[in-house]
Amino acid sequence: MYPDTFEGFQTDSSETWTTFTKREFKPKPFEDHDVDVKIEACGVCGSDVHTITGGWGAKNFPFCCGHEIIGKAVRVGPKVTLIKEGERVGVGAQIYSCLECKQCKNDDETYCVHQIDTYGAIWPGTDIVTNGGFASHIRVHEHWVFPIPDALETHIAAPMLCAGLTAFSPLVRNGAGPGKKVGIVGLGGIGHFGIMWAKALGAETWAISRTHAKEADAKTLGADGFIATADKDWEVPHRMTFDLIVNSANSTEGFELEKYLSLLDVHGRWISVGLPEGAGQEVRSTTFIANGCLIGATHLGSRKEMIRMLNLAADKGLKSWVEKIPISEKGLAEAVTRLKKNDVKYRFTLTDYDKQFS
Amino acid sequence: MYPDTFEGFQTDSSETWTTFTKREFKPKPFEDHDVDVKIEACGVCGSDVHTITGGWGAKNFPFCCGHEIIGKAVRVGPKVTLIKEGERVGVGAQIYSCLECKQCKNDDETYCVHQIDTYGAIWPGTDIVTNGGFASHIRVHEHWVFPIPDALETHIAAPMLCAGLTAFSPLVRNGAGPGKKVGIVGLGGIGHFGIMWAKALGAETWAISRTHAKEADAKTLGADGFIATADKDWEVPHRMTFDLIVNSANSTEGFELEKYLSLLDVHGRWISVGLPEGAGQEVRSTTFIANGCLIGATHLGSRKEMIRMLNLAADKGLKSWVEKIPISEKGLAEAVTRLKKNDVKYRFTLTDYDKQFS
Repeated sequence: MYPDTFEGFQTDSSETWTTFTKREFKPKPFEDHDVDVKIEACGVCGSDVHTITGGWGAKNFPFCCGHEIIGKAVRVGPKVTLIKEGERVGVGAQIYSCLECKQCKNDDETYCVHQIDTYGAIWPGTDIVTNGGFASHIRVHEHWVFPIPDALETHIAAPMLCAGLTAFSPLVRNGAGPGKKVGIVGLGGIGHFGIMWAKALGAETWAISRTHAKEADAKTLGADGFIATADKDWEVPHRMTFDLIVNSANSTEGFELEKYLSLLDVHGRWISVGLPEGAGQEVRSTTFIANGCLIGATHLGSRKEMIRMLNLAADKGLKSWVEKIPISEKGLAEAVTRLKKNDVKYRFTLTDYDKQFS
Repeated sequence: MYPDTFEGFQTDSSETWTTFTKREFKPKPFEDHDVDVKIEACGVCGSDVHTITGGWGAKNFPFCCGHEIIGKAVRVGPKVTLIKEGERVGVGAQIYSCLECKQCKNDDETYCVHQIDTYGAIWPGTDIVTNGGFASHIRVHEHWVFPIPDALETHIAAPMLCAGLTAFSPLVRNGAGPGKKVGIVGLGGIGHFGIMWAKALGAETWAISRTHAKEADAKTLGADGFIATADKDWEVPHRMTFDLIVNSANSTEGFELEKYLSLLDVHGRWISVGLPEGAGQEVRSTTFIANGCLIGATHLGSRKEMIRMLNLAADKGLKSWVEKIPISEKGLAEAVTRLKKNDVKYRFTLTDYDKQFS
């Protein structure tokens, strides 16, 4: 048992993605900058479902999913300066980068070529597969361990560690703020954060969804306006008015990209943060030339952005919309099954870790 | 004859794209802000070939192609303040926008929804088709008439009016300058300007071409480095090092976009300025996510950028690489036929207008 082994609910194959098996596993060797976190809660992310169902390709099964982790720092290495033992902390979807390359030094550590994912990655120089937050503990380099402000409840903070940051980083990196008109496409786990953050950053914030079903939710979350793309000529009144659109849609099926791009003002940006499975989009120069728009994608966000986001949420009293599910074989199966069907508003947080792990 | 009618070499259909027929045509009515330019030279642009061959779709034949025009302002309207009668001036690929919308007021007039192309467009409220520079004169709103610095020879300046500006605008709009590493893909009419401008703006400038055939030319134009994409593992030494790549390639055939994008540093930009015919590129979030790069396209450039570019060329003694062809039925046929085969280094300028037009 701890600290030699951790315990968690592992997925064994993509054929058995709703089956979680509780067993012990060996963490990576403890190093001077490492922090051991005793986990208290973990969000369930769309990435978890993409990964365990095999939608993103083969993985190094078995391992524990989960990368929206909140817990207590129960052991800190001798060189750790960023985290204190006993502190409540969070861990997101990345647990390592080199911190020495140009990208790391520019606060672009999520683009470091040496990055390691929280789960399903092989720890360099070993045969150890990384295990995530559906477990008793996690061992992480201090750079990827974040203090959680007191004002944020544990189950509320958890989904911010991946979904929240994924929405926050492209907003701040692309100038969302006063005087800017920002659209958030897709009102799910990431999108509901996108609306809250964009509004909190001071932008005129529009939710863009397929139907009007989530309009009331969007307004409650802070949206100034709502666009339903099932409406006829939905794009016409908004052409060339948006500075930035963050696309969190989880599917490209039937997606008329050019209509969305027509919303953008000159050199406006369309930043995707979801990683839909299936077909891509065909683009050519004419896709962009009417307004000189740009499309791209971003990956998570930096440590600095994580801390800024958590403090923003704490300061403004912003809360994830969370449904709590106690962690167990059954609870996990329910969470991933319902998430696969988008049957959640807007995030699950696994709780009651103390009932499963000693 | 002038000023009631102009005379020029018109194209009648995409089936007869190498046939140019000299005839008179009626210009748009002269208005208070208009300038009549007596044409002395005109570059031949890839757009001309795309248009007359039907590669970009149906056009309002017949009309005169040509939108890299140099000539003399022989008549200026009573409200013209930007141009003096008798001045040597240039006209590019656009002859009108509203000047009142948000885009126009932000120096983004090439993205105005009311923009009118130099040739092949219908003049609003009339049945008059706009005619370009393969003609005796052109009538243009003063905003799209540009003074030509004395230091630039007429045949050298002509190709700058479209190809030059098309390369210049994305460079200055995306920060090309000291401390930046900039790539220019495609060494043709636009690309040869891209190399000259990027270097003159102070960027570390790399030419990116399929083979080494044009390496010596690229170095002469000012390139600091050269990459041939036919070489094995050509992208590997340059991964995540470019801040900006301007893509002027005229074809997407066999184009491995993801390898090019792998050259970009975090949030680096890939800006296309060519409008290749044929298939587009399939993209998805994973296309962009390793470095958070962006792709887009730009369209021409603003009046301010045009004037800045012409002055930069004059101040630094930068010269288009031009092959002169006297304008005539035969000369035009040769120019478009050779341009279709990329048989030019790197631009044709039509000259000797005084021998064809009185």
